[in-house]
Amino acid sequence: MEYYTNRMSKLIESLQGLPGVGAKTAQRLAFHIIGMPEEKVTMMAESMIDARKNVCYCKSCQTLTDGELCPICSSEKRNKRTIMVVETVRDMVAYEKTDSYKGVYHVLHGAISPMVGIGPNDIRIKELITRLNGDVDEVIIATNSNVEGESTAIYISKLIKTLGVKVTRIASGVPVGGDLEYIDEITLMRALEGRKEL
Amino acid sequence: MEYYTNRMSKLIESLQGLPGVGAKTAQRLAFHIIGMPEEKVTMMAESMIDARKNVCYCKSCQTLTDGELCPICSSEKRNKRTIMVVETVRDMVAYEKTDSYKGVYHVLHGAISPMVGIGPNDIRIKELITRLNGDVDEVIIATNSNVEGESTAIYISKLIKTLGVKVTRIASGVPVGGDLEYIDEITLMRALEGRKEL
Repeated sequence: MEYYTNRMSKLIESLQGLPGVGAKTAQRLAFHIIGMPEEKVTMMAESMIDARKNVCYCKSCQTLTDGELCPICSSEKRNKRTIMVVETVRDMVAYEKTDSYKGVYHVLHGAISPMVGIGPNDIRIKELITRLNGDVDEVIIATNSNVEGESTAIYISKLIKTLGVKVTRIASGVPVGGDLEYIDEITLMRALEGRKEL
Repeated sequence: MEYYTNRMSKLIESLQGLPGVGAKTAQRLAFHIIGMPEEKVTMMAESMIDARKNVCYCKSCQTLTDGELCPICSSEKRNKRTIMVVETVRDMVAYEKTDSYKGVYHVLHGAISPMVGIGPNDIRIKELITRLNGDVDEVIIATNSNVEGESTAIYISKLIKTLGVKVTRIASGVPVGGDLEYIDEITLMRALEGRKEL
């Protein structure tokens, strides 16, 4: 690193704090930044600081928001009686992009994973339970279809059933456009179990 | 993008200006930034602005530097009579890491490549020629060993020979630890041509 100027070394070092950015990528990014128009660099830097300082969690669904409630929770067009539980904000965005879901969400910010020390209290399950105050008809569990996501789904569904709220799980099966021969056995099994009459 | 808060969208969008960062990576980086300690975000942002504003080119060798002359050009330990010509600052750093070269450098910031419209005047050849004022014994051309690098080497060597300065080219051959069967024919040919008596 001592081959660069102090300022470059500092920049390269700080970029290495980003996920997936090692020494070589940080170097490439730093050189790019040096060559960018100054106002673009300023804009990027300021948007980082601004987002870090001001983005917080929605009081209701725990997604990221600029205010108290996120645009979805504060929208009158959304059905507050249906809550879809997802692991991450990105999962929520993925469902929003389908433009087919009209209920609201609950973002857990993770999944139960005893292997890495993440228990039920480390994700936002408590916050979900406090929302089930009689005004909710259905909780749709849309955690990932892996071990952690499934365990989380089972844990939450047991909790919610004791409250007398309907709980459902999104379907598991062959993805649209998927070629059967390349799909794993468990997915094929699930697709068979979940078959529907035509 | 409208699924995120304004601040997040802005951040994601500005991160997409970086090389190799598409929509998905920008999202991942943005989420990481939101979760970083605030002082780290501020440090990174400030190092970007600071580097962009203050890093400039060394008056002599054209590498990046904080001052007028880079540490190498202003060092009394370096032999100013030998100049190694490289394409990029990264190439210079690669040679510095070997800790075996004691001369100075000249960074071209590119290579001649008519296919993409980069001619001799688009890289810093002029600046190299002005350095050959009688105080230089040897110019070592260390451009890359690809078509562009080779053409640039030939172009520069012709120019410099007319000035009566010795020009050399770094050796082409089998990399140390390289397995012959996996090495391309041209490299093998070059290695044969460049053989030395033992």
